[in-house]
Amino acid sequence: MKIVSYKKENDFSYALGATLVFELIKKHYKDTIEVLVHSSIKKDLLFEIEKMCNEKNIIIEKNDKAFNILSQKENCFVIGVFKKFETKLSLDAPHVVLVNPSNTGNVGTIIRSSVGFGVKDIAIIDPSADKFDPKTVRASMGSIFTANIQNFSSFESYSSIYKRNYYPFMLKAKTMLQKVKNIKTPFSLIFGNEASGLPDLFLNVGEPIIINHSKDIDSLNIQTAVSIALYEFTK
Amino acid sequence: MKIVSYKKENDFSYALGATLVFELIKKHYKDTIEVLVHSSIKKDLLFEIEKMCNEKNIIIEKNDKAFNILSQKENCFVIGVFKKFETKLSLDAPHVVLVNPSNTGNVGTIIRSSVGFGVKDIAIIDPSADKFDPKTVRASMGSIFTANIQNFSSFESYSSIYKRNYYPFMLKAKTMLQKVKNIKTPFSLIFGNEASGLPDLFLNVGEPIIINHSKDIDSLNIQTAVSIALYEFTK
Repeated sequence: MKIVSYKKENDFSYALGATLVFELIKKHYKDTIEVLVHSSIKKDLLFEIEKMCNEKNIIIEKNDKAFNILSQKENCFVIGVFKKFETKLSLDAPHVVLVNPSNTGNVGTIIRSSVGFGVKDIAIIDPSADKFDPKTVRASMGSIFTANIQNFSSFESYSSIYKRNYYPFMLKAKTMLQKVKNIKTPFSLIFGNEASGLPDLFLNVGEPIIINHSKDIDSLNIQTAVSIALYEFTK
Repeated sequence: MKIVSYKKENDFSYALGATLVFELIKKHYKDTIEVLVHSSIKKDLLFEIEKMCNEKNIIIEKNDKAFNILSQKENCFVIGVFKKFETKLSLDAPHVVLVNPSNTGNVGTIIRSSVGFGVKDIAIIDPSADKFDPKTVRASMGSIFTANIQNFSSFESYSSIYKRNYYPFMLKAKTMLQKVKNIKTPFSLIFGNEASGLPDLFLNVGEPIIINHSKDIDSLNIQTAVSIALYEFTK
């Protein structure tokens, strides 16, 4: 296929680097269109890639040009091309809900942490950073291929389907994270946009929670807040 | 002064953007060499900056060229030029110790989280990402001006001065974070390089700790690990 730089409108995206390609093939081989390798790839790695692709009947193509178009990193020798896929959230598992996240790196890292704490279901409320942008995929370290991620046009369209115990994280909340008792499952941990946080309306949704921090900083960054919440709710 | 792009060898660095400049002047006005403003700065902001600089006797210079050299961001209208400063760690306060961190963004974000949890003392073991790189300063959101950060040539040169309770975080540790009992102060939370973690030698240092995660990911990212550790040790 002809390799073009990533666009949100395309129905395919790219996994850059060996770690991501392995995860892609392991978890979504049916969505893998092809694997591109660079001519200076090491023999061991090529051998592993070939073995995996042969098992799953995936085409391998040597295409150095593609690397100039898709990757700025010098140490990237493998690229997976994949069809964007749809996944649905589980009704009874815990969720992370991201309301209007704007940064691909943050979304990717949050997916990684979330999967790391065993919470594989992530709802994203639009408008939002593109979950399939290669930067998101990269920041997720491939855990995007393990997670179930579903986009919703509004929080209401999410909450009308997933009725459960909501915990919105906001600076105006009264309950401190370490004081939360009797966590009810299934639960959804809800986080706002990086710059603006959650709208005040969420003070009326479920049990709002604050993660305390010193007055020396304005706020914790969103990756930090999500990770700490996940740690406390899943430990 | 003549504005040149940042170099590690220079004895000055830059704080890019209003938030950072305010922090710089509030906490380190004596190290502030001058403040640069762009001709398209908004009047309100200029007024605030002028007020602050006049109070502290700091020179303001209109210099649009400097912004082309120093900032890729379109929404940056103020730059603080500051002399690199030395800070010493406190003997009785808790510390975060970063052994060979390699990424400026990570170091900056860790400083921000650390200050956010009231741990203002951070030891950095060289070789390491440059704490005064404008990218580090930016990622710290200015909290670098609140923290005490000191570099050491080796862990031994740190530990010979700061004898205290060490908690190295490593995947080979046996004690889980949520099981740590009787935390002894003052303590030092120790973290390794982003890619390689801490060397095995640290298994013999203090009480090694692991933050458990699911098998679906290789490791938590370092910012996440540090934040969760800080949360648990300071809550």
